[in-house]
Amino acid sequence: MRLRNKPGAMETIKDNSQYILTDGSLWKGKWQERFAKEQPIHIEVGSGKGQFIVEMAKAHPDINYVSIELQTNAMISVLEKQLVEQLPNLQLLLVNGADLTDFFAEGEVSQIYLNFSDPWPKKKHAKRRLTYKTFLKTYETISKSGAQLHFKTDNQGLFEYSLASLSQYGMVLNQVWLDLHGSDYEGNIMTEYEEKFSAKGQPIYRLEATFKEK
Amino acid sequence: MRLRNKPGAMETIKDNSQYILTDGSLWKGKWQERFAKEQPIHIEVGSGKGQFIVEMAKAHPDINYVSIELQTNAMISVLEKQLVEQLPNLQLLLVNGADLTDFFAEGEVSQIYLNFSDPWPKKKHAKRRLTYKTFLKTYETISKSGAQLHFKTDNQGLFEYSLASLSQYGMVLNQVWLDLHGSDYEGNIMTEYEEKFSAKGQPIYRLEATFKEK
Repeated sequence: MRLRNKPGAMETIKDNSQYILTDGSLWKGKWQERFAKEQPIHIEVGSGKGQFIVEMAKAHPDINYVSIELQTNAMISVLEKQLVEQLPNLQLLLVNGADLTDFFAEGEVSQIYLNFSDPWPKKKHAKRRLTYKTFLKTYETISKSGAQLHFKTDNQGLFEYSLASLSQYGMVLNQVWLDLHGSDYEGNIMTEYEEKFSAKGQPIYRLEATFKEK
Repeated sequence: MRLRNKPGAMETIKDNSQYILTDGSLWKGKWQERFAKEQPIHIEVGSGKGQFIVEMAKAHPDINYVSIELQTNAMISVLEKQLVEQLPNLQLLLVNGADLTDFFAEGEVSQIYLNFSDPWPKKKHAKRRLTYKTFLKTYETISKSGAQLHFKTDNQGLFEYSLASLSQYGMVLNQVWLDLHGSDYEGNIMTEYEEKFSAKGQPIYRLEATFKEK
């Protein structure tokens, strides 16, 4: 199912080009210029409606955040939140499935978030999972040496797959949570999906992993 | 609580020295001589009452198994099973907490099993967990290059800890199961504890990991 774009979506995007980009390649290697202050850049790949990244940007003014999403309607929801908050440390990037190395220079990013990514449960679709090795290679390329990947999901199969995929790629698991909401982890910021899902009492999985030193 | 030994335990052990050893250091580097055939040696560290290792030895006659346990009473249960089965590919080692490198030469072991190890849930007891780095070092020393560690537990905290501990030690996770009994994994052999515990419907966690090539 392909959702039709919200009416006026493209106009809203064009009118707010200080916050949202549709051609990220123009800013490759120059992302710091988009922010009020030069400070570490953290990105979320697949921001959905943006509750996570907007709340993160509010909670951590010393970090610059880039929200990346390919669904226009979801991105409009992120933009609507940002138009309310007007956070100087949050930029939005609406992209269409292309390689992140088109948009970020080598070592430009300090940390990467993946939240509730599409599980692509069929084995033949494993290559589409955002923790598949080709994606990990992309994240590693745009990241600083020793950068971290933080990943949350409610999907057991995707989490099992991701633990092995990251390990086989050479990443080191710093910590793993098999029931994040039942743990003593502090400062968790929930996505819209996470709020809805976890209310059913099912576990949320989380991991923090580090790329090899370059 | 320290259990008193079953009456006559030490006599039973002495009378069956073809199957059970109490001084493993005598056979260090010579374990193959204890078996009918020279073939890869797999060990289970903490065999409990031995259902797992006895059934494994029955199912895989092409592997030589060593059951290691430090509780005399538990080991008597393993021995009782072996006295019924008389498997030529199963040896029992009753040890008292010493280092496995005292009993096995470098590279003598091809695979290591840990099943439902004591979780030692308090952080200050982390060093006692059988997936703590000093134990991993021991397993690695006695193992062949690229050997695997197979680990099962019902304990969420121990599994979370172990995923990170193995990864930080430099091991690679080949596969992870967050609900073994709900998965399509074939050939699972249950421990006594696993049978009892899983009947309550709670998940069994499992992983297979590989030591670095030497």
